[in-house]
Amino acid sequence: MENINSSSGGKTFRVRKLELSDKSKGFIELLRQLTVCDSVSDKEFEDRFKEISMYGDDHVICVIEDETSGKIIASGSVFIEKKFIRSCGKVGHIEDVVVDAGARGMQLGKKIVEFLADHAHSMGCYKVILDCSDENKVFYEKCGFKKKEIQMVKYFI
Amino acid sequence: MENINSSSGGKTFRVRKLELSDKSKGFIELLRQLTVCDSVSDKEFEDRFKEISMYGDDHVICVIEDETSGKIIASGSVFIEKKFIRSCGKVGHIEDVVVDAGARGMQLGKKIVEFLADHAHSMGCYKVILDCSDENKVFYEKCGFKKKEIQMVKYFI
Repeated sequence: MENINSSSGGKTFRVRKLELSDKSKGFIELLRQLTVCDSVSDKEFEDRFKEISMYGDDHVICVIEDETSGKIIASGSVFIEKKFIRSCGKVGHIEDVVVDAGARGMQLGKKIVEFLADHAHSMGCYKVILDCSDENKVFYEKCGFKKKEIQMVKYFI
Repeated sequence: MENINSSSGGKTFRVRKLELSDKSKGFIELLRQLTVCDSVSDKEFEDRFKEISMYGDDHVICVIEDETSGKIIASGSVFIEKKFIRSCGKVGHIEDVVVDAGARGMQLGKKIVEFLADHAHSMGCYKVILDCSDENKVFYEKCGFKKKEIQMVKYFI
């Protein structure tokens, strides 16, 4: 898959896959803007990175790095579910899309979502889905999504 | 994980993992009650079955077989997503829950969902999620779920 470039105010933003060294570039701090994310040790990060990497193109996490500051300022993930329905079809599931609060308004979220949706498409998915709050509905509509169902959740902790 | 047994009208229903031989027991025909599911050749079924099996406990499809008729009358799937958020947490995603139209009212759907949620729990997930129509909301509430977000979709075909 080609990397996607975006520029804003003279800066160029490149969407690329997550790398092990991104932990030291504020990746976990960025995720904290999304939800609860306690500190993760280098060992825990590496172990989880390797577990996800084992899925290859079936689970991709992408990031945008601000090359001036060396910080990760946007991220998102997609995994490919293999089904029997739709003639053994595949569905892409987008999760954990986040843009740094200081980097909003530069279409970085849209670039992340496009990268993930393009990946799902290239993997042969017949659709890509995600869950979001009502307040983020308009953002995803601008990314070409439409509201369909409701999300139900059961917590174990 | 233990199998879950359920009885109704003298019949006992056991939830078990999908087996390769379930194709000849009406598994694809059952899925057709859920959504579009064109005919799948034995080779396609076997290939997809093996691809999913490679994920081991990270992607489980379960079924209930009516041992009188030898037909698969209920099914559902769950896959385990590995995240960095929530201290490298995991989330279970339930998909494709279906009960044969002729086997409704025997709590088979609830048994399927409980089996899948228990599996996600046993795998260390902090939550399990699913998407459903508004009309199925009450059913999932009876299974211990609550409405949270909205589902957005983008189709490629």
